[in-house]
Amino acid sequence: MTAPVIVLVRPQLGENIGKAARAMLNFGLTELRLVAPRDGWPNPSAGPAASGADIVLENARVFGTTAEAVADCAHVFATTVRKRGVTKPVLTPEQAAGDIRSASGRSAILFGAERSGLDTEDVALSRAIVTVPINPEFGSLNLAQAVILLAYEWSKGANLIQPTATEALPPAPQAELEALIEHFEMLLEPTGYFTPAERVRATKRTLRGVLTKPGWNSLEIRTLRGVLSALARR
Amino acid sequence: MTAPVIVLVRPQLGENIGKAARAMLNFGLTELRLVAPRDGWPNPSAGPAASGADIVLENARVFGTTAEAVADCAHVFATTVRKRGVTKPVLTPEQAAGDIRSASGRSAILFGAERSGLDTEDVALSRAIVTVPINPEFGSLNLAQAVILLAYEWSKGANLIQPTATEALPPAPQAELEALIEHFEMLLEPTGYFTPAERVRATKRTLRGVLTKPGWNSLEIRTLRGVLSALARR
Repeated sequence: MTAPVIVLVRPQLGENIGKAARAMLNFGLTELRLVAPRDGWPNPSAGPAASGADIVLENARVFGTTAEAVADCAHVFATTVRKRGVTKPVLTPEQAAGDIRSASGRSAILFGAERSGLDTEDVALSRAIVTVPINPEFGSLNLAQAVILLAYEWSKGANLIQPTATEALPPAPQAELEALIEHFEMLLEPTGYFTPAERVRATKRTLRGVLTKPGWNSLEIRTLRGVLSALARR
Repeated sequence: MTAPVIVLVRPQLGENIGKAARAMLNFGLTELRLVAPRDGWPNPSAGPAASGADIVLENARVFGTTAEAVADCAHVFATTVRKRGVTKPVLTPEQAAGDIRSASGRSAILFGAERSGLDTEDVALSRAIVTVPINPEFGSLNLAQAVILLAYEWSKGANLIQPTATEALPPAPQAELEALIEHFEMLLEPTGYFTPAERVRATKRTLRGVLTKPGWNSLEIRTLRGVLSALARR
C-alpha cells in the first residue's frame, strides 16, 4: 500500500499550503507537490500555518505543470466540488481512498486553486473525479479541509493488512501515457484531423479522454506506440 | 434520524467558532451550542470566519455549563484527541456517526477549548468518547477540523447529494469494437506490422487485448475510427 501524493495545483496563499501540510501529516501523508504556486516557493507564510508539519514543507517539490507533477504516478484523481460536464467516474472520498489503498502503483490526488479549483485540463489528466458530498445549499469547503477529508479517509485503512490487489500490471506512469497522446497528436497534425482551429482544444481533449480511460499498462502502451509507428510507415 | 447538536465547550477565539459553523453547515448540521465562550457572545470575529454560514451563528445558543447545554440530549459524545484514563467506550468518528444515525433521541457532540480540550468533568457527562485516529508522531487537529471530520462522517448516512455515479455511456456493442479492430488490422496489413507470418495470430491477439480492455463507448469508438481515417490520409 503506497501513500498518495498530494498535488496542489496553482495554490495562491502560502498559509493554505501550510495548512494543507498540517492536514496531511495528521493522517500520515508526507509527500506534497506544488504546481506553479502563485507566490513562488518557499513561501514564508507557509511555515507558521503548518503548526509543526515542517518536514512536509521542506520536502515539497515544485513543478511547472500538472503533467510533470504526476508523471511518475499510475493513478491520478482530481478533486472537484461540483460535478463537471465530464464523463469520468465520480467517487466519494471513501471510494477513492479504497481505490488508492488497493491500487498497485502510486496515486496522486489533485487539488485546485483556492477559488477557481482545478481547470478542465487538469481534470482531463485524471482517471477519476473525487467529489465530497456536501450540503447542496452551502458548499464551502476550503483547500485544507478538502485535503484533510481525503487524508483522513486514506488513513482509515493505513495500518490494516490489505490483500494484495491483483497480479495485473499497474497502469503505466502518466509520462508514458502522455508520450502516447503526443505520438497520436504528432501523427494526426498533418492529416487535417485537428480542424477547424477553434475546435482544436476540444478535439484534443476528446482524444485524451479516450486514451486516458483504459488505464493501459506499460506493455500495452508500448504495443500502441508500435501500432502508431507502423501506421506512420504507410 | 436526528442530526446531532454540536457543543463547543469554553471556546476561545470567535474565529474558531465561525470556522466550526462553516464546517457544520457544509455537512448539513445547523444546531450549535456554546458553553461559556471566553469572549462572550455574539463575537464579531465569528461572522467573517463562517464564510456565509451565518444562519448557524444566528441560531447558536449559549449556556453556562456543559450539563445545561446537553440537558435535552439522550446521547452525549465527548471528543478527545488522546485517550484518557477513563473507562468509557472509545469510538472512531465513523463508529460514533453510525451510533448517532441509528440512535433514537437526539445526540450531542462535545468539543473542548482550543488548547486544553475537554476537562474531566465534561468527559464524565458523556456516554462515550470519540477519538480521531491520528499520526502518533504528529497530532495537531484544530477545533474546526475535528468538527468537520465528525460532521462529514455523520453526513455519510444523511441524504446529501451523493456524487451521481457517472454519466458515462455503456461500452459499445461488440460489433462496433470488432469493426474498430478490423479497421486497425486493415490499415496495419500493408505496413508490415504483422510479420513474421508465424507471429501474426499472437500479434493480432495482443492488439485485440489492448483494444478490448478499455470498454470504450460508441462515441469513443467513433472518435478512434475518425483518428484511423485521418491517419490513413497521410
